[in-house]
Amino acid sequence: MSIVLYHHPFSRAAGTLWMLEELGIDYDLRFVDMMTGAHKAPELLALNPMGKLPILVDGEAVVTESAAIGLYLADRYALGRLAPALDDPRRATYLRWILFAPSVIEPGLMAKAAEWEFKSGSAGWGDHATMLDAMEKAIGDGPYLLGEQFTMADVIFGGTVRWMLQFNMLEQRPTFTAYAERLGAREANQRAQARNATVMQERGIAAPAS
Amino acid sequence: MSIVLYHHPFSRAAGTLWMLEELGIDYDLRFVDMMTGAHKAPELLALNPMGKLPILVDGEAVVTESAAIGLYLADRYALGRLAPALDDPRRATYLRWILFAPSVIEPGLMAKAAEWEFKSGSAGWGDHATMLDAMEKAIGDGPYLLGEQFTMADVIFGGTVRWMLQFNMLEQRPTFTAYAERLGAREANQRAQARNATVMQERGIAAPAS
Repeated sequence: MSIVLYHHPFSRAAGTLWMLEELGIDYDLRFVDMMTGAHKAPELLALNPMGKLPILVDGEAVVTESAAIGLYLADRYALGRLAPALDDPRRATYLRWILFAPSVIEPGLMAKAAEWEFKSGSAGWGDHATMLDAMEKAIGDGPYLLGEQFTMADVIFGGTVRWMLQFNMLEQRPTFTAYAERLGAREANQRAQARNATVMQERGIAAPAS
Repeated sequence: MSIVLYHHPFSRAAGTLWMLEELGIDYDLRFVDMMTGAHKAPELLALNPMGKLPILVDGEAVVTESAAIGLYLADRYALGRLAPALDDPRRATYLRWILFAPSVIEPGLMAKAAEWEFKSGSAGWGDHATMLDAMEKAIGDGPYLLGEQFTMADVIFGGTVRWMLQFNMLEQRPTFTAYAERLGAREANQRAQARNATVMQERGIAAPAS
């Protein structure tokens, strides 16, 4: 039984494709036509009541939330390679930056872009300048979050960095752009981008106007 | 070498205390006087550049972000008990609701309280009513997120539910309040509350006005 990724090229499932390519395991893509609201159909809502993509189904296991999918896949299929072993102290670093992406960077950058007002002590994402500095410290001298070893944390945290740079929501600091370029140069990332492009071509989906 | 939790009773470290009590392992609390800005001192910033609590140190491992600390501890010290095994399909359910708490519930409820405007398709946390319904589905008939088995997902997701109900940021639906009561009745939760109260007494910290 193969892994199934419910996918649309403009959704966060594009990042999940990159995860699967890094893993090097078999998977099927199931196209969900978000433009006609197919992600809100009953059979999709039964898998994810949020009506969002990505959704990953692996036999009986159903995972949603991009970072949760990455954690699941790396532990299940690439422990010791894309995820540190459970008794490896680097597991701490791995987990903290994986959680940082969806719970600090994403809401933090949305709050910044929309100029929302909040108490930085109350919001989990804190203040903007501190967050950017923390991200720089996390990347450090690189090349990856765990130094020489590329892990799923780079797909999750780094994928968010790439996506936010692309949408001009993240300051173009050299540490960020160099890290994003390193990640974009990975073969698995390029295979994922190619597969996304193929889906767009097959489905007649035009790239969003830049 | 014991686990050290950098703690203040009014910070999210109060929830980490509950995690440690559920694990039943030895740990030391290190009080950080947030009222005098001690969490922004250089030695604390070296551990967490965000200048926030909790911070958990376990030998060489340094973990921040509450949900990451929970994931770390459960896998390291209670695999099969507080965390499903890596090849257990319920691991998927476990992970998705752990990620849901800091990246959907927290920013979603802050956005609601502050009446921020956003596109629900772009924000990871989606629209409010859908989120509340998804939370109800996740809890289901309970008693816990994985049915009969209590896990770290309940401490993280359920801790957020309890905290948000307490601050009147979450609608008082019967599913939520009954779940919060079940969690609050756990002995480990009560030990954690008692330990928090002891720290407040020792340090002469008054409870915030309600």
